[in-house]
Amino acid sequence: MHHTTVPPLAQMLRNLDGWLEQGIAFAATREMDPELLLEARLYPDMFPLRRQVQGACDSAKLLCARLADVEAPRHEDGPQTLPELRARLAEVVAFIEGIEVAAFEDAAAREITLPFMQGMATTGHCYATEFGLPNFYFHATTAYAILRHVGVKLGKRTYIGHMTLHPARST
Amino acid sequence: MHHTTVPPLAQMLRNLDGWLEQGIAFAATREMDPELLLEARLYPDMFPLRRQVQGACDSAKLLCARLADVEAPRHEDGPQTLPELRARLAEVVAFIEGIEVAAFEDAAAREITLPFMQGMATTGHCYATEFGLPNFYFHATTAYAILRHVGVKLGKRTYIGHMTLHPARST
Repeated sequence: MHHTTVPPLAQMLRNLDGWLEQGIAFAATREMDPELLLEARLYPDMFPLRRQVQGACDSAKLLCARLADVEAPRHEDGPQTLPELRARLAEVVAFIEGIEVAAFEDAAAREITLPFMQGMATTGHCYATEFGLPNFYFHATTAYAILRHVGVKLGKRTYIGHMTLHPARST
Repeated sequence: MHHTTVPPLAQMLRNLDGWLEQGIAFAATREMDPELLLEARLYPDMFPLRRQVQGACDSAKLLCARLADVEAPRHEDGPQTLPELRARLAEVVAFIEGIEVAAFEDAAAREITLPFMQGMATTGHCYATEFGLPNFYFHATTAYAILRHVGVKLGKRTYIGHMTLHPARST
């Protein structure tokens, strides 16, 4: 379970930090306060960019903590400003990458119970594939979509980011 | 690799079909042609809903076919209309769910080469976690975001859809 969660989540959180950086550069060209980007949303009753970034951080942190059965760092208040959000992204990357790989050994079969399940439970595997990963990518992609929607020039390569490649044996 | 790809992808493709159905109902209340929804996009140089649905279908189909090393059904032209898109969604679900689980046995270590890798390759595992799944969720979430952006009332539960639950042993 470690390999299907920690490396891709850390990668995408780093990508997300890069999109915010591009948003800050975009705001500078428009002579606008970059913090205003955090208020942007795709529809009045959808969460704004600030909350999407918080959601990406929280979902990555909680997914990995629950799978590895370790305590997640407690964050009482969500980060509000761009510097706070970027610091939180770095903090969550460090947290999930710092969990020992061995702690994920029994993660696939681990029983996971969440408040909204009301006495029901799921396995670590189903929790990750049916809820944790889709939920994380929901927030990351919506953050990307909001930045694109307001005019920040991001590309699909920026979304995918680094890939682990080696010279092809067969071609 | 089967369990981390086929069930969640099939689930999300079914969810996506449900969002389109809700879009059709929404269009009826506005007395507008539902096909117009397929032209909606979040920014002039982003792909519209039609292409996002095609992208979700293609990325799911190709991810599973490459991991299992089986031939994917060929689709020369992208589906254009809502009925065509919904038929394609059902077809891709049937295709990926029809691949034998055993075909995924060596998928994690399988060498995957793609045109854009230019002589380089990746493993099935890295391909799925670093490219295939994020790319799939990119298209699914952007389709969801476009429908929400034009006013279709979807909720996060509709995004996540069905979860596999069992009575909790420990509470």
